[in-house]
Amino acid sequence: MEKKIKQKGLVFVVSAPSGAGKTTLCRAISRIFPALHFSISYTTRPPRPGDVNGRDYHFIDPEKFQEMNDRGEFAEWAEIYGYRYGTSRIILEKVLEEGQDVILDIDGQGARQLREKKLPGIFIFLLPPSVEELEQRLSRRKTEGKAAMEERLKKAKVEMAEARWYDYLIVNDELEKAKEQLKGIILAENCRRERMNNVLEDILTGK
Amino acid sequence: MEKKIKQKGLVFVVSAPSGAGKTTLCRAISRIFPALHFSISYTTRPPRPGDVNGRDYHFIDPEKFQEMNDRGEFAEWAEIYGYRYGTSRIILEKVLEEGQDVILDIDGQGARQLREKKLPGIFIFLLPPSVEELEQRLSRRKTEGKAAMEERLKKAKVEMAEARWYDYLIVNDELEKAKEQLKGIILAENCRRERMNNVLEDILTGK
Repeated sequence: MEKKIKQKGLVFVVSAPSGAGKTTLCRAISRIFPALHFSISYTTRPPRPGDVNGRDYHFIDPEKFQEMNDRGEFAEWAEIYGYRYGTSRIILEKVLEEGQDVILDIDGQGARQLREKKLPGIFIFLLPPSVEELEQRLSRRKTEGKAAMEERLKKAKVEMAEARWYDYLIVNDELEKAKEQLKGIILAENCRRERMNNVLEDILTGK
Repeated sequence: MEKKIKQKGLVFVVSAPSGAGKTTLCRAISRIFPALHFSISYTTRPPRPGDVNGRDYHFIDPEKFQEMNDRGEFAEWAEIYGYRYGTSRIILEKVLEEGQDVILDIDGQGARQLREKKLPGIFIFLLPPSVEELEQRLSRRKTEGKAAMEERLKKAKVEMAEARWYDYLIVNDELEKAKEQLKGIILAENCRRERMNNVLEDILTGK
């Protein structure tokens, strides 16, 4: 008897400069699609107040990170402000094999690695409506000094230029609109003919 | 002073075998996107009870259709059950130039002509969940005899095989789900990077 090959899940890579509202957007999307798997990065960054290990990140020490990296266990990794962040290749592959779609909330460096490795992912970049607006949002945070804020803004501008090679761009001027757009991208990618071939053949052959 | 080139609209071509629920779906979508332009076909088919000229179709006689066709005024046209149906190329181009997105609700023959002419459209095929379900839906209509119904079902199966070259497939098992998917495709296509280039450059250069 022919065994049907289970269709692999899709990877949605979401990047954004800090202050673009990525965390809020991703949380809203996880409520819309409870079956969507949110990949949790490994990081050497110490937990901040409110961070939960295994929910926000897998917090590990630099030695452990290095070991995992040496064993090729990261699909991508990046160093940001002196801390390392990486996505477990093993977990990612397992979830995709099970047919689940995955969201990878990672920075531009990591996304570029995945693109260069020809990961068949869907790359989505979230933009602030303007640089001024981003500046205002960052300054409202007040969790860091002026110098750190300016450093962050400068980095954000560099990151935003990366948006030029992404598949989809979402401008986050209104959370509700951005949410509908991200939801739309996820639904649309799942309706692509290449993805629907099995379903179509079943309908045509009356299975 | 540099004049900004207005971005052209997108064309969404929606095809389906009869009984797949296309009319209901398209009406629902027009309520979601009031700015979306619904292209109205010209036809030589006589109006049925309830048909409104200029809303459902532009009803014209065969001579007029032939004249328009001879002048190359149709972007696509097809003959179905002895009647002709065509899309005005002039109206289509005008609406797209104005930056409006357009939905073309046309049959597989017409869609194939547009694809062959390399129209940069987005081709969406709406499918019934199964051939049996389609048969039931068609038989519930009771507006036609058994022979006509069987002819229609046979034609539907041929048309459904065309779905293999479309960009997106939507299975209409639940109207609400199908509506979300079509809405998602429209939103997603408008977020594609190629389409967002102007917006991105404006954000990056602070315009």
